[in-house]
Amino acid sequence: MGFKKILQALVEDNIGALGGVIMGYDGIAIEEYSAATTELDVPTLAVEYASVLKEIKRTVGVLKTGELQEVSIIADNCIVLVRGVSDEFFVALVLASDGNFGKARYLLKREAPGLRESLQ
Amino acid sequence: MGFKKILQALVEDNIGALGGVIMGYDGIAIEEYSAATTELDVPTLAVEYASVLKEIKRTVGVLKTGELQEVSIIADNCIVLVRGVSDEFFVALVLASDGNFGKARYLLKREAPGLRESLQ
Repeated sequence: MGFKKILQALVEDNIGALGGVIMGYDGIAIEEYSAATTELDVPTLAVEYASVLKEIKRTVGVLKTGELQEVSIIADNCIVLVRGVSDEFFVALVLASDGNFGKARYLLKREAPGLRESLQ
Repeated sequence: MGFKKILQALVEDNIGALGGVIMGYDGIAIEEYSAATTELDVPTLAVEYASVLKEIKRTVGVLKTGELQEVSIIADNCIVLVRGVSDEFFVALVLASDGNFGKARYLLKREAPGLRESLQ
């Protein structure tokens, strides 16, 4: 399955996702997918978070605590869940605040190897 | 219970915590506590992450998705779990990579109001 289909399947799984993006740490999106029901501006959100993630990746590197695997950022109104796909790319899902955080983490972890393969 | 005791109780609960810190977003620690068994440099780690957290807080503000509640950063060798305590302070726990992520999230959420009160 190509990365576009994997992303679409993640967003459309029953986890309360508003949208998803596959993006480089340089802030350039490779693929985006928004749920039909959302007015959330997923691309803008992803670009804002990309610089934060780059900084997190740098910090994890400085501290020599191994490779960055996963980041989650929970605010009052939404949950941003990120998984590193490769040294260059990450996949992010944006969930509604009542979305299924645990299942989303599980799905991202499960799909990351497939995404990595299809991005090579 | 004072914030020092709350932090100590969090680290000593059976969740695989290596240490914890209460810190301002300006990177100045208010209280630190390391598990007896760890060689992890909790203060250094916390300072490195404070600038990242400040950036996350700023991003969450820009995107108008409500107040920042929780951040987790999972690397190969450790888990950093952060909970906003007030507009100025956060509490962070560092767990071993096999630490109890779910219970740590629960405990931080449960103790945050007590920390906020005792910091005022």
